[in-house]
Amino acid sequence: MAENLPAGWSINGNGAEKSWFRRFEFPEYARLRRFLDGLAELAEATGVHPDNIGFGKDYANVSLTVPSSEEEQARLGDFVSRLDRLFEEN
Amino acid sequence: MAENLPAGWSINGNGAEKSWFRRFEFPEYARLRRFLDGLAELAEATGVHPDNIGFGKDYANVSLTVPSSEEEQARLGDFVSRLDRLFEEN
Repeated sequence: MAENLPAGWSINGNGAEKSWFRRFEFPEYARLRRFLDGLAELAEATGVHPDNIGFGKDYANVSLTVPSSEEEQARLGDFVSRLDRLFEEN
Repeated sequence: MAENLPAGWSINGNGAEKSWFRRFEFPEYARLRRFLDGLAELAEATGVHPDNIGFGKDYANVSLTVPSSEEEQARLGDFVSRLDRLFEEN
């Protein structure tokens, strides 16, 4: 199933280990903090929890395992587009 | 300089790449969220920013580069003990 991967996202791993990955970079720490708080709210609102979020002072690496069912993949796609919007509007 | 590494922390890398590392695990997502919020406040209050924090639904991996100066190492030690207390009291 060829995924329509949104801009900025790449695929890591394959099969059950397959995940979508994007690195977000921030000119200031305050904007990173706002993004991470927004991400936490989005995860709680959607029930979609990234498998790993790695961040430092000016970046956040987000990895999401690609689920098997079509329905869950649609939820992943929704989460990702809302996360991208959060980043752009930040 | 043999470091008095607090319990639960280990050393990764060496020389300029040397860092202190600890994995914190949480029975519930809410406690992980409280820990991460507390960590962000502590980082802003102390000016000590971990190089990488990786978290998922029930864990947080914290890495801090060991600075060269004695003064900064003391600040690191203070940050680490306050982070450990944050975890224990969470």
